[in-house]
Amino acid sequence: MHPHRDPRGLWLLLPSLSLLLFEVARAGRAVVSCPAACLCASNILSCSKQQLPNVPHSLPSYTALLDLSHNNLSRLRAEWTPTRLTQLHSLLLSHNHLNFISSEAFSPVPNLRYLDLSSNQLRTLDEFLFSDLQVLEVLLLYNNHIMAVDRCAFDDMAQLQKLYLSQNQISRFPLELVKEGAKLPKLTLLDLSSNKLKNLPLPDLQKLPAWIKNGLYLHNNPLNCDCELYQLFSHWQYRQLSSVMDFQEDLYCMNSKKLHNVFNLSFLNCGEYQERAWEAHLGDNLVIKCDTKHQGMTKVWVTPSNERVLDEVTNGTVRVTEDGSLHFKKVQVEDGGVYTCYAMGETFNETLSVELKVYNFTLHGHHDTLNTAYTTLVGCILSVVLVLIYLYLTPCRCWCRGVEKPSSHQGDSLSSSMLSTTPNHDPMAGGDKDDGFDRRVAFLEPAGPGQGQNGKLKPGNTLPVPEATGKGQRRMSDPESVSSVFSDTPIVV
Amino acid sequence: MHPHRDPRGLWLLLPSLSLLLFEVARAGRAVVSCPAACLCASNILSCSKQQLPNVPHSLPSYTALLDLSHNNLSRLRAEWTPTRLTQLHSLLLSHNHLNFISSEAFSPVPNLRYLDLSSNQLRTLDEFLFSDLQVLEVLLLYNNHIMAVDRCAFDDMAQLQKLYLSQNQISRFPLELVKEGAKLPKLTLLDLSSNKLKNLPLPDLQKLPAWIKNGLYLHNNPLNCDCELYQLFSHWQYRQLSSVMDFQEDLYCMNSKKLHNVFNLSFLNCGEYQERAWEAHLGDNLVIKCDTKHQGMTKVWVTPSNERVLDEVTNGTVRVTEDGSLHFKKVQVEDGGVYTCYAMGETFNETLSVELKVYNFTLHGHHDTLNTAYTTLVGCILSVVLVLIYLYLTPCRCWCRGVEKPSSHQGDSLSSSMLSTTPNHDPMAGGDKDDGFDRRVAFLEPAGPGQGQNGKLKPGNTLPVPEATGKGQRRMSDPESVSSVFSDTPIVV
Repeated sequence: MHPHRDPRGLWLLLPSLSLLLFEVARAGRAVVSCPAACLCASNILSCSKQQLPNVPHSLPSYTALLDLSHNNLSRLRAEWTPTRLTQLHSLLLSHNHLNFISSEAFSPVPNLRYLDLSSNQLRTLDEFLFSDLQVLEVLLLYNNHIMAVDRCAFDDMAQLQKLYLSQNQISRFPLELVKEGAKLPKLTLLDLSSNKLKNLPLPDLQKLPAWIKNGLYLHNNPLNCDCELYQLFSHWQYRQLSSVMDFQEDLYCMNSKKLHNVFNLSFLNCGEYQERAWEAHLGDNLVIKCDTKHQGMTKVWVTPSNERVLDEVTNGTVRVTEDGSLHFKKVQVEDGGVYTCYAMGETFNETLSVELKVYNFTLHGHHDTLNTAYTTLVGCILSVVLVLIYLYLTPCRCWCRGVEKPSSHQGDSLSSSMLSTTPNHDPMAGGDKDDGFDRRVAFLEPAGPGQGQNGKLKPGNTLPVPEATGKGQRRMSDPESVSSVFSDTPIVV
Repeated sequence: MHPHRDPRGLWLLLPSLSLLLFEVARAGRAVVSCPAACLCASNILSCSKQQLPNVPHSLPSYTALLDLSHNNLSRLRAEWTPTRLTQLHSLLLSHNHLNFISSEAFSPVPNLRYLDLSSNQLRTLDEFLFSDLQVLEVLLLYNNHIMAVDRCAFDDMAQLQKLYLSQNQISRFPLELVKEGAKLPKLTLLDLSSNKLKNLPLPDLQKLPAWIKNGLYLHNNPLNCDCELYQLFSHWQYRQLSSVMDFQEDLYCMNSKKLHNVFNLSFLNCGEYQERAWEAHLGDNLVIKCDTKHQGMTKVWVTPSNERVLDEVTNGTVRVTEDGSLHFKKVQVEDGGVYTCYAMGETFNETLSVELKVYNFTLHGHHDTLNTAYTTLVGCILSVVLVLIYLYLTPCRCWCRGVEKPSSHQGDSLSSSMLSTTPNHDPMAGGDKDDGFDRRVAFLEPAGPGQGQNGKLKPGNTLPVPEATGKGQRRMSDPESVSSVFSDTPIVV
């Protein structure tokens, strides 16, 4: 039996249908106003500790602060909010069970300035995960299970100032985040404490400006104990940097499976840390930075004779540049002494002293390199000359009995030339620029029985050379004194 | 029996005592490092949802953010932290049971910028409660039981930008917080939604700049319904202010114990809201502000003829001042039209149009006052002249029979002079400066039998005056026409 369809029935349905639609619309509107699980105070939505398994469905577009902490969220998908929340500046997601965040999760919240993802179960930070957050200033990721930080995870975050990565499983120091002129130009705090860092790029860290090092927290990591590490942290301690001063007791390193405080490494005999003076030679140009603990401070330099250094050269060779550095042009001996930088910030003032020593002679690093090359070249030529002398002008040892001395001149000359060419290496290839001189030593000892002149075994004892021929040839130029000098004493090139 | 005291025992005790002291020192140090109930990430201490009945005893002096939300705190005493926390910028105390905060509770945290006291049980905000927080920017007090806000509770908070007082029991609008040049010069958000506000200071609110009104949330309050309220919120709606646009559905008012949406007050017949033009008269000086929704915007004015207004008067009578206002000096009729202000901010641009109508005549309040005084003076003099005419130059009514008309000239003159002196009042004494003219009326009716000329009873009928004498005197000047005009028609001054 088919149901009877009365077209008039549709007309009767219309009013109730429209009423239903109206109610749905009203309900939808009500949800947009304030989700049921949340407490709303104008643009703040506080939905914390509500055992929410998901983000409430519809959030008002005017939301500025969204607190979803202490819930049961486990995934933050791309479509977690169907509407763009362009007013949202703070998103609190701490104390959830988040183990997945879509790489597009933050595209609906482009104006976020504060993101709290702490105390979750995140394991990795994928490539470009936070790249949509171009105005983010603070990112809290502490107390997760993060093992790897992708090198591009924090790309395009030009405004990021504070990044907390404490209490994770990170074993690689993310140097790309702090290097000057790098991805995060405004980063003043990077918390890597309580992780699994073993090796630090110590020379790179030493070069960082003090305002980065001041906020670079590295305590509670199983660092490798060595004197370079001790020197690094001793310098930070000397500079009273917060990252070391606030956590001196918690700065550890590991040696033979035991933890040691970094400042108590007596077993390494590292020697006391001493701040070194700046050294310069007569006529050098020199830049001394006022390496303050905070950024954007007003800097004033005072000379050893208590005069303020101006930004124009008035009297002497020194001036202050726009960034507050001290510039010396053709430094003089009388420029030496202790310079003081007074740095003034909004909430913090700092005084820095720098000692400058000027030597009373010119010496440039560039010339050193040239000198080394020159010396090596001279040594080379000298060796070749000596070999030639040895080959063609060896004096006849007339005072010895030539019979017991069977000699192979060709074999000797070969071994000697092999020896003499060794110092002829490329001075640019090595990393030993700091050495003033390249010392190379060859010992030319008097040949004993059964040995060549350099202590090398002779190829054979079977071919005696006619004594008179050699003797007559050697006598022609008679450079005996030369041969005696170079054959019995070490050659120092 | 006395215990035997061996002095050597003290020496034996010393090492264990020093060990104990060392352990205590270590323990003390450990607590200062990170309290047991908290999770520490460098300068962040997260101690939320730990059922803490009190603030952890010793907090590290470097703490920057302290999260104590979702605990069981009920009182915040003056000595809640024995050490000053000068680095602390954020203190989160929401979702506790706080019902008491000492007036000295915030003196150890002078650099606090963010204070969350929401979802507690606070009932009053005492005098100078937050006065130590001179750099506080955001204060969250929503979802408490606050009934009264002391007028001095927020004194000395020059940096406060956002104040959330939603979901409390507040019944008095704290006008002192928003009035221009008032206590909180930087306040851009005041959330008073979901309270018990009935009456608003409507004229004061209307005068506020748009950047304050834009963040003044008043929804969900049992406001008194009237047309002035409707006009206020209609203006805010016209200006697209967030406080109204985001909560249009929640803006209620109460009439005969029923809640009505503010924009649906048909029973009041308030009339549609219309934006009014600025009105000026020829030669007026005038200042038109570019009343933007946000502070600190760059403002550019364009004239009705699409020319940019400069800060120097070049062509015409108008210029832009430093604060972005339009200044007219001696406005002309041709200055009328629609001026447009283009305001540009960091994240937001705004376009404002203002219509200016210039009337083709001068009208100044000051001149009106002078005119009134002048008219009164003229009226006075005229009255005196009339009295003198009446006294000395009254014409003889020769065409009437003089027998039936016994007249006392002296009595008439007296009554007339009493009447005429009444308008001679001080024009400066009254508050009627807005009246264009001062109108004074005296009725001089023809005298009936037994009455004086002004309807006043004659002193007596007993003294008949000789007819010929009066007649002859009056004929001398014969000002009949004057007398007929002034004696029978009302004198309008």
